[in-house]
Amino acid sequence: MGYKEQAEFLRSGLYRWEGDARAFEKDGPYIEVVTSPNNPDGAIREAVVSRGEGKLVYDLAYYWPQYTPITQPLDRDIMLFTFSKCTGHAGSRIGWALVKDKEVARKMTEYMQISSIGVSKESQIRAAKILGVLSEGCQHFRTVDSQNFFEYSHSILKERWERLRNVVKNSKTFTLPKYPRDYCNFTGKYMDSNPAFAWLHSKEDIDWESRLREHKIIARSGERFGASPKYARISMFSPPEAFNLFLERFSAIIDDINGNVVT
Amino acid sequence: MGYKEQAEFLRSGLYRWEGDARAFEKDGPYIEVVTSPNNPDGAIREAVVSRGEGKLVYDLAYYWPQYTPITQPLDRDIMLFTFSKCTGHAGSRIGWALVKDKEVARKMTEYMQISSIGVSKESQIRAAKILGVLSEGCQHFRTVDSQNFFEYSHSILKERWERLRNVVKNSKTFTLPKYPRDYCNFTGKYMDSNPAFAWLHSKEDIDWESRLREHKIIARSGERFGASPKYARISMFSPPEAFNLFLERFSAIIDDINGNVVT
Repeated sequence: MGYKEQAEFLRSGLYRWEGDARAFEKDGPYIEVVTSPNNPDGAIREAVVSRGEGKLVYDLAYYWPQYTPITQPLDRDIMLFTFSKCTGHAGSRIGWALVKDKEVARKMTEYMQISSIGVSKESQIRAAKILGVLSEGCQHFRTVDSQNFFEYSHSILKERWERLRNVVKNSKTFTLPKYPRDYCNFTGKYMDSNPAFAWLHSKEDIDWESRLREHKIIARSGERFGASPKYARISMFSPPEAFNLFLERFSAIIDDINGNVVT
Repeated sequence: MGYKEQAEFLRSGLYRWEGDARAFEKDGPYIEVVTSPNNPDGAIREAVVSRGEGKLVYDLAYYWPQYTPITQPLDRDIMLFTFSKCTGHAGSRIGWALVKDKEVARKMTEYMQISSIGVSKESQIRAAKILGVLSEGCQHFRTVDSQNFFEYSHSILKERWERLRNVVKNSKTFTLPKYPRDYCNFTGKYMDSNPAFAWLHSKEDIDWESRLREHKIIARSGERFGASPKYARISMFSPPEAFNLFLERFSAIIDDINGNVVT
């Protein structure tokens, strides 16, 4: 469920969904949501509507060092975070925000109060525990041999991306996005992006969500993200057995297509 | 935070807060929320707007046998429940609904999906555990000597209400609501109501929330519930020490007023 669905379902008298920011040309106050890294394509994004009366909301759900190099300490007016993609605790339904304007922060708190009185105490206890473990793991970072959570997650994603790129390399129809290698201030190294999702593109004009499902691969069509069905989004953080099975089945599809193209 | 605050804050294009149902005289579709037992006064309520195009929502947060006799198995179109007042787990932010119309139920589920994707998993696990303990306790009910949760809670509230009524009896200014004694199908006995809140009324034209606060008693003014400040709402389910201290301080206030009236 995205920002669009929320805005449309609630039919608020306060705001209205205006669609893609790149096509927005109206005058007056506006809110631009910048999802960076973006879901589904993992791209680092900046605001595109540049006008005086706008409020920018940065959704940083995927701005964690296992996915993308942390190139700078961000300093935006409104920044949203969640445990969901940080540690995988999506089910705890807990996030946080860094907000510069006191009045905006107060309104956000009021909204929480009015919509739900506040976040589940059980989730808060869990989140506090997780934060403790994460920050403890990062405290002695770069001085000890053991991996902290982010390094560990990064090594898994890196290995999966390498395996997927190796498979796609053999394909005559599929391509994957390329990401710039960049210096990560968190790890102190130059790093590749290893996004949470693979944003697969095919030259062939096929509804890939349906086609992949026939081969027992669950993907989400590009259409669901306002793109062409030639795109499909595939999760890179499924359980290990599921990911292995996906790669196996996907390789078979590629071999099959390659064969068909050749003969 | 009540229904009014939610409706006004969200400024939905779908509905608008129209105020007290007893004063509602507009034509066309409407939603009436029936809070029964009502907060703050503990009264059993029925719908008051009777027209064809209305949807009734029964908020049954306090319809539990520790508070009020369960006179009948309710059979309404939309019935809302919560753990908050059932067992005191308000912080888990979890409730449930019984809904007859499939389409309404689907929309409610969709709203949950869109507004929060769903309830915290930690809360769900806790709630499942609580439900297990509650229902186990009730299974051998009336055949064993031990009290189940509802009997235990009822005995505590009953004792507190008796003590409070004894204190108020001596007062020349304060009164408490009277509730009908009724047959409770859950306990199989005639029972009094022992609401979660005492809805205290005073003859004197004083802002009782402020006056009580001076005596270190936290109450909520009737004004916050659309009534006169001569009313004050007092929690009957505070921790034992807090309730004892409240009764002590409140007795002192009554003695003081009685003294002043006499001299």
